[in-house]
Amino acid sequence: MKTVKNIASKSEDITQWYTDVCLKAELMDYASTKGFIVYRPDGYSLWEEIKNYLDKRFKDLGVRNVYLPSLIPMSLLNKEKDHIKGFAPECAVITRGGNKTLQEEMVVRPTSETLFCDHFKDILHSYNELPILYNQWCSVVRWEKTTRPFLRGSEFLWQEGHTLHKDENEARAFALSILRIYSELGRNLLAIPFVIGEKSASEKFAGAVSTYCIEALMPDGQALQCGTTHYLGTGFSKAYDIKYTNKDNQIEYPHYTSWGVSTRLLGALIMVHGDDNGLVLPPKVAPTQVVIIPVKAESDPNILKTCKELYETLKKDNIRVILDDSNKTPGWKFSQYEMKGVPLRIEIGPKDIFNSSCMASIRYSYEKKILPLENISKTVFDLLSDIQEKMYQKANELLTSKIFECHNREEIDKVLKNHEGFAKIISSEDEAEDEQYMKEKYSATPRVIPFNQIMFQEEDSITGKKGKKVIYYARAY
Amino acid sequence: MKTVKNIASKSEDITQWYTDVCLKAELMDYASTKGFIVYRPDGYSLWEEIKNYLDKRFKDLGVRNVYLPSLIPMSLLNKEKDHIKGFAPECAVITRGGNKTLQEEMVVRPTSETLFCDHFKDILHSYNELPILYNQWCSVVRWEKTTRPFLRGSEFLWQEGHTLHKDENEARAFALSILRIYSELGRNLLAIPFVIGEKSASEKFAGAVSTYCIEALMPDGQALQCGTTHYLGTGFSKAYDIKYTNKDNQIEYPHYTSWGVSTRLLGALIMVHGDDNGLVLPPKVAPTQVVIIPVKAESDPNILKTCKELYETLKKDNIRVILDDSNKTPGWKFSQYEMKGVPLRIEIGPKDIFNSSCMASIRYSYEKKILPLENISKTVFDLLSDIQEKMYQKANELLTSKIFECHNREEIDKVLKNHEGFAKIISSEDEAEDEQYMKEKYSATPRVIPFNQIMFQEEDSITGKKGKKVIYYARAY
Repeated sequence: MKTVKNIASKSEDITQWYTDVCLKAELMDYASTKGFIVYRPDGYSLWEEIKNYLDKRFKDLGVRNVYLPSLIPMSLLNKEKDHIKGFAPECAVITRGGNKTLQEEMVVRPTSETLFCDHFKDILHSYNELPILYNQWCSVVRWEKTTRPFLRGSEFLWQEGHTLHKDENEARAFALSILRIYSELGRNLLAIPFVIGEKSASEKFAGAVSTYCIEALMPDGQALQCGTTHYLGTGFSKAYDIKYTNKDNQIEYPHYTSWGVSTRLLGALIMVHGDDNGLVLPPKVAPTQVVIIPVKAESDPNILKTCKELYETLKKDNIRVILDDSNKTPGWKFSQYEMKGVPLRIEIGPKDIFNSSCMASIRYSYEKKILPLENISKTVFDLLSDIQEKMYQKANELLTSKIFECHNREEIDKVLKNHEGFAKIISSEDEAEDEQYMKEKYSATPRVIPFNQIMFQEEDSITGKKGKKVIYYARAY
Repeated sequence: MKTVKNIASKSEDITQWYTDVCLKAELMDYASTKGFIVYRPDGYSLWEEIKNYLDKRFKDLGVRNVYLPSLIPMSLLNKEKDHIKGFAPECAVITRGGNKTLQEEMVVRPTSETLFCDHFKDILHSYNELPILYNQWCSVVRWEKTTRPFLRGSEFLWQEGHTLHKDENEARAFALSILRIYSELGRNLLAIPFVIGEKSASEKFAGAVSTYCIEALMPDGQALQCGTTHYLGTGFSKAYDIKYTNKDNQIEYPHYTSWGVSTRLLGALIMVHGDDNGLVLPPKVAPTQVVIIPVKAESDPNILKTCKELYETLKKDNIRVILDDSNKTPGWKFSQYEMKGVPLRIEIGPKDIFNSSCMASIRYSYEKKILPLENISKTVFDLLSDIQEKMYQKANELLTSKIFECHNREEIDKVLKNHEGFAKIISSEDEAEDEQYMKEKYSATPRVIPFNQIMFQEEDSITGKKGKKVIYYARAY
């Protein structure tokens, strides 16, 4: 089955395989700015699809887009103590501007809570201006020592939502409604299943009361945090003096939420679906959904003619299609578009002309199907929908099979020693003891406290103390 | 006619008026980062409409979006000498990252030619990969001493296109096809007419062979450069060692174009159409196209009911509509939505219910029309189209009336002394002498050498030497 040269095997060396795919599927390139990457057209268009999906969903909730400065004065960043403690070590610092030493240093935004707070302070006055629902599409810079394309880099693209609400209930409900949208993004667009829940105290966002998250599992058994929403309480409001007059003419502090997903999702997409022949893309997010390849075109002029007609038909019906009629060999083309993860390849050769049909190859399953050319758009459209759904089912079965209920240390050892997946354990009130054990022995961290809390035993899986909640542990990217 | 308090008069103090409108129409707010602004929802959505229009037009030409780093290592920026000379004085410089002093300083991108070159060098090998047509939506930072919202700021949003071509003809033709799209953006979306042509040597982009531009005229007689496209020749290719093998297996350097428009267009939009009551927006770009206001709603429950039905009807038919049924007075609401520039206001009061009609007020002309409620979406849609077209005609007549053919120094003096508009002059081969005269006497610069070159006299309008070309001069923002 392996036809593409020069990429590592996914099962044998997933780290090398991942880098190979990122580069050879032309999703990215390394930049001269150390730790930064170039998002090439096929990589960036994955992000554009995610953006289109989310932007519409956010706007349906009444969220409006804004744009705040990319640079933050140091004094502004310093106002919320937990926040600065979390981000200061990762900052890029500007000390000169316009050939002069700055009186006050600035940082390139690592996240924008402080700027949003500063703006909210100016514009919020009265209860009838609430809720304020803002979002920003931008990039952020966080200095990283070791980087990997999309998964961890000194700059990434993301959206960051920032909202103000009249009370805790409304704010938490809003943070959860965004979490649902993130989860549906996985379900409907990326064909990636997530475990959904809350973060433990140790893994919360710097300055948050609660952090909710979507967490995916990679084929190497390591977890990948794919999106978070935070309920920040009134801590930021108080630190930045954001207040308003309520109905009874009293001063109150609004409740804050922030939330984001980033181009890290591209890393999940590559990891979850890819195989030894390269990238495998779900149709809804693929820049090219169908590639048409003429076979033995020199034997009959009708072959190329039929390919062109097919191309025009599919294009007219809004299927993202390309026709490769270059003089490269069909074998080279097959490998090339497999590498690029195109969900459906259609070949037309002499026999197909005779039968008024074409040969379709499904990227993710390597299945082949003969399709009649009559009514082809409908057939292809249905086939792409079917591929989308089955890719999700396949990924979901894998995830489910890699969540292991662990009743004791032995069972945890089996799961985490060889990175089998999520160790689902019962934890006592005191999480710290469990966390230390997991960290020292397996470099594993608590990934998520799932909303679905079914206590499968009474006692803590590690200490035997009285159990309190279910937590998923794994090593994480 | 003046009902809004607290904004300056446009004719009496356009500078103060402009700032008032930017703030009070809630397009922007000042940020704590000095020289930077917050793009508020109604301001940002203007940019989103521009982006949607251009992104589609670019993609129809085969352009693909990418994203390159926001930071540039100093050594990379330094490779093209003219380019660095032009941009170095405006750079924000990063000297620390991740709590460490950087071995090599970086700048926040002021423009991305150097990064694109560095990437092109990696990916271009053969003639059959040409043309390469890339675009990037991002922000850039250029340190400015004096700033004005949208018109000049230390950070602005823009798109920057970067393309490689096999020869000069193709590259120049491409740069011109983008210029045409920019011009049509003005014609079709912003209702802003431009003068179109080439920049003189002194006003070219740092590193360009030729710069083409669209130039608008503001009501105070000053010119505003609204977009540029550059033919960069092979200078950048050579400086950054970008080369390819042609059909005859010889090494060649590709021909480069770059091009961009920015949020400066929002400044033009405000200036060109606004009046003493605030912002005036062309319907196609307005975040809210129609506002419905109930009048004397307390007198008849059918008034609010009819307003709600009208709202639902227009919304269903994809008209961007809001209903303001708050308990503020109709007078307050009229002023408020005039300030925000909503193109069409619809009032429904007792008489309208009786007549099954509504009262429409057109923002730009203050005309009022009684519209039957039957078939209202079609009526409103046609009215909005009519407003869009007439706003363009009005702006175009004004522009045309402010371009003055100047045969001699006296005529130039009449135009430029009182900032009447563009002084259209005949210039000799030696542009420098004219430029110096215009700069010293009027602080005016050559804005554009129009494509439409009709020599209206033989001799240079300033020196009397043998004339060579038509140039438009004005003071510029």
